[in-house]
Amino acid sequence: MAKPFKTIGLIGKQKDPRIAESLQQVADFLAAKGLTLMIDQETAALFPSHHWEAVTRHELGQCCDLAIVVGGDGTLLHVARSLADSGIPLLGIKLGRLGFLADVLPEALGTDLAAVLAGHYREEERFLLQAELEQGSQSCLIGTAFNDITTHIREVVRLIEFETYINGRFLNSQRSDGLVVATPTGSTAYALSAGGPILDVNLNAMVLVSICPHALSNRPLVIDADSLVEIVISEYNTTPGQVSCDGQPGIVLTVGDKVKIYKRPGKVRLIHPAAHDHYSILRAKLHWGRKLE
Amino acid sequence: MAKPFKTIGLIGKQKDPRIAESLQQVADFLAAKGLTLMIDQETAALFPSHHWEAVTRHELGQCCDLAIVVGGDGTLLHVARSLADSGIPLLGIKLGRLGFLADVLPEALGTDLAAVLAGHYREEERFLLQAELEQGSQSCLIGTAFNDITTHIREVVRLIEFETYINGRFLNSQRSDGLVVATPTGSTAYALSAGGPILDVNLNAMVLVSICPHALSNRPLVIDADSLVEIVISEYNTTPGQVSCDGQPGIVLTVGDKVKIYKRPGKVRLIHPAAHDHYSILRAKLHWGRKLE
Amino acid sequence: MAKPFKTIGLIGKQKDPRIAESLQQVADFLAAKGLTLMIDQETAALFPSHHWEAVTRHELGQCCDLAIVVGGDGTLLHVARSLADSGIPLLGIKLGRLGFLADVLPEALGTDLAAVLAGHYREEERFLLQAELEQGSQSCLIGTAFNDITTHIREVVRLIEFETYINGRFLNSQRSDGLVVATPTGSTAYALSAGGPILDVNLNAMVLVSICPHALSNRPLVIDADSLVEIVISEYNTTPGQVSCDGQPGIVLTVGDKVKIYKRPGKVRLIHPAAHDHYSILRAKLHWGRKLE
Amino acid sequence: MAKPFKTIGLIGKQKDPRIAESLQQVADFLAAKGLTLMIDQETAALFPSHHWEAVTRHELGQCCDLAIVVGGDGTLLHVARSLADSGIPLLGIKLGRLGFLADVLPEALGTDLAAVLAGHYREEERFLLQAELEQGSQSCLIGTAFNDITTHIREVVRLIEFETYINGRFLNSQRSDGLVVATPTGSTAYALSAGGPILDVNLNAMVLVSICPHALSNRPLVIDADSLVEIVISEYNTTPGQVSCDGQPGIVLTVGDKVKIYKRPGKVRLIHPAAHDHYSILRAKLHWGRKLE
Repeated sequence: MAKPFKTIGLIGKQKDPRIAESLQQVADFLAAKGLTLMIDQETAALFPSHHWEAVTRHELGQCCDLAIVVGGDGTLLHVARSLADSGIPLLGIKLGRLGFLADVLPEALGTDLAAVLAGHYREEERFLLQAELEQGSQSCLIGTAFNDITTHIREVVRLIEFETYINGRFLNSQRSDGLVVATPTGSTAYALSAGGPILDVNLNAMVLVSICPHALSNRPLVIDADSLVEIVISEYNTTPGQVSCDGQPGIVLTVGDKVKIYKRPGKVRLIHPAAHDHYSILRAKLHWGRKLE
Repeated sequence: MAKPFKTIGLIGKQKDPRIAESLQQVADFLAAKGLTLMIDQETAALFPSHHWEAVTRHELGQCCDLAIVVGGDGTLLHVARSLADSGIPLLGIKLGRLGFLADVLPEALGTDLAAVLAGHYREEERFLLQAELEQGSQSCLIGTAFNDITTHIREVVRLIEFETYINGRFLNSQRSDGLVVATPTGSTAYALSAGGPILDVNLNAMVLVSICPHALSNRPLVIDADSLVEIVISEYNTTPGQVSCDGQPGIVLTVGDKVKIYKRPGKVRLIHPAAHDHYSILRAKLHWGRKLE
Repeated sequence: MAKPFKTIGLIGKQKDPRIAESLQQVADFLAAKGLTLMIDQETAALFPSHHWEAVTRHELGQCCDLAIVVGGDGTLLHVARSLADSGIPLLGIKLGRLGFLADVLPEALGTDLAAVLAGHYREEERFLLQAELEQGSQSCLIGTAFNDITTHIREVVRLIEFETYINGRFLNSQRSDGLVVATPTGSTAYALSAGGPILDVNLNAMVLVSICPHALSNRPLVIDADSLVEIVISEYNTTPGQVSCDGQPGIVLTVGDKVKIYKRPGKVRLIHPAAHDHYSILRAKLHWGRKLE
Repeated sequence: MAKPFKTIGLIGKQKDPRIAESLQQVADFLAAKGLTLMIDQETAALFPSHHWEAVTRHELGQCCDLAIVVGGDGTLLHVARSLADSGIPLLGIKLGRLGFLADVLPEALGTDLAAVLAGHYREEERFLLQAELEQGSQSCLIGTAFNDITTHIREVVRLIEFETYINGRFLNSQRSDGLVVATPTGSTAYALSAGGPILDVNLNAMVLVSICPHALSNRPLVIDADSLVEIVISEYNTTPGQVSCDGQPGIVLTVGDKVKIYKRPGKVRLIHPAAHDHYSILRAKLHWGRKLE
């Protein structure tokens, strides 16, 4: 049994007033357990009737020993990126559809959340990716991704042309709608729609999946997560490209720009109820059905 | 043996000075055969040293009994759309890479083109698609396509949500990067990159191929070419969409807009040398190789 | 409103005693309507307590104006092949899982079946394929298929090598686990698992789908249903092949054998309740879900 | 620079007299370098005019410090399995088509092979899989595979039904033509034809790829190579199955049989010329072409 959690940070889905009731419910539950509670500043606005301390995201990461995130997978992706440096473990209370990341139901606070708080939980480590843009001799950080970093066309009527290198070795030139570089977490998101495989969540790998590649023999490539992926916009490219992290608004790319993608130092720590089973979520989300009847 | 051609319209790839030499070569060849030659106005600008009549695209379609197009498949797509109402047959002289549509080599004028002009050719019929936009009670023509009409996301970071109807019957709702509706001609272009099947060029069918569909059980659907496809942007859609014909810059779509896609009346008449074999072009373009050694 | 049916042939799933109760229920229902009933000989054995005339399958096809088939899609495939020459319309009462072909529920006899018998129905035409084997100068019929004719490896550890011709024109050589040639009906069966597109049921086309092709640029090909497909086992082939119709036990193929596949003359007439909607069955079977909520 | 090789074992493709000339050439080359040479017993038979010591495969593995394999990838797969326990490094001289594993050309003995023998080479580690059959309380070894272990239908007309477990956790039930479990080496062989991704050769992972799965949302799954995969033939299965290693003739499976697949202890050591570049072989074999011109 792991160490119980004492100081809990509470973060809700941004700008969604529908979560106020769930937030209140979670906060009351935590208070009744005698735990110290801190509320994320932005969340506090959604949630007027509380009397707990509102803190910045950064303070929350520093002072709490568990962050509880009320929302869906999108909210958890966002929180994981913003708290990447803090090392704080994250637990998701899911609203709406079943998520891959947020798997405690609001109606299971008394059972699942109580057990987790008492130290009966499973901790899982995931990693993030980071992208850097190199333009001539200048370099800047593009962002951090939990799911994927996608280099793609900006206006959707022309192919983008680029070259890919793995650890400095030339892999291929391609003309396509883009290239998704995904973590195991992201392998069940956009990369899957683009035709990629599922990577088991604990695998130390990333997957490169081309979007509508012109070459019919193009296939997804799974590489070690400690590799450096470099994508260079070809001098033959005639249309602006774009790079985006977890589907956030991106940065424009032009001829000669190089996007460097690599594993971000540090880990995301996800907390699940002890009975959490990733494969059962996969089966439910992908309609794989149950054991044959 | 078919009727020989007498009055030839000559059209070149737009704004590409590299074709001037080939144009001159083709024009000299036709003149030496004693044929009447008319030059497309835009092409005439590229091609200063000629003394033939320059005509508008419309006049060319009305006065000539064959249009010779010097360029690649892209140029032929463009010419076919612009001459769709004229009924004039088209023959492509290909520059650069092997094309599916333009298959006479510049070095084969004396053999292939001479034979075609003498009436030894194969005529093939293709059809075009047309798209119409319905916004409330208003309706307008979007354009004509030889390859495909694609409804897709405009900014590449979010899914578009829409419903599809075939002949007024609901097919499905989908969240994806878009939907390609392609002719048999277009089935070897963007639709193929998106995962679609190849439609034999003479098949009276169109194919609907989703781009990166969220539902993993989505599959391409082949329907009769005389069907009406309607795509309605869902009221749950949160991002602007776009519809484009043959990858040309498109029209923006918002919630409730309906795109209607159907076969355009009339046919495109493609002229090929008598020995033309579409399957051998497929094998070459798709690297299917030769008979097993 | 169509002509009502008077003489009904009743056919059940072979050798499955679990259908006896449903058969009795259907027979009683038809008798209560005052219709003349004939029982297929093989079905009669399953169904001891009846007092109707038992006839051969051939007689049933000749004497009845509707065949009611109690079972699943597999039974309907089988009956359609065996009654192909009779021109009799078929209606399926489905047991077990939802079918693409058999869509009247046993509990809907009083509504759906009653309406059909009264002439309120939708008739749909489907076609069958036929395969012939040519070995040197000899030729024999292999069989008839409603779904697909599959040429494939016999022992599952080696590729089969063969050449495909469409209407006498060479398409390609391939090494693969086999080739499925499917009707629109079969496009949602094995061909779909092998990566083929869905063909709309009324489309006059067939689809060629390779099974695990060695060439990564191999793609499904949709051709006119009035084409002749010929598959020739390559002289480089080193392992026996097999050809089977609708997954029935097949005929062995060796080097030089040619399988000819073409549309069988005549049509299968399927009867559905007037409200039948093929797309809603597709959505249900393929888990495409409903309109977006 | 690595330690030079002194005692070389020579193994040729089995029962293929066409390799005699290449064998002689390689042997003469090695002898001229003053190296000690041992010939595999089976190879010796193909190669009458030699005067070197013929040894068993086992002795070769014990006594030599490099095994040179003359043949294609198939021969190298076979040799790697048979020498798996010896730890001896392997170098392939390729005959015929370019291989992924055997990449020294016979015409490059004086350059590539000479350099390797002098210690200028790159050593790469690969792993093997092993399969075990559990029937009730009994268990036996099925075999060893360098590429893949495939559980599949035996007679090709019916689906096989089975359940898969990863490290004792239920993954899914499936009906399909089979399941390929492949190493990174095997990810470019049969698994690729079945729709799997490419795994980078140094990745410590295996990939599960279903063959023609009935569930359309089935996708390849990449898992840690240190996982235990268990495949249990379902009690609902109605057709015999089969399990085979690297496509060798397999063992029959019936209801309740369990196939256990896991990484074999030890490593295969592959020797390549120093300039060896796996990605350039990928590009050539998969027709990915060169950098865009």
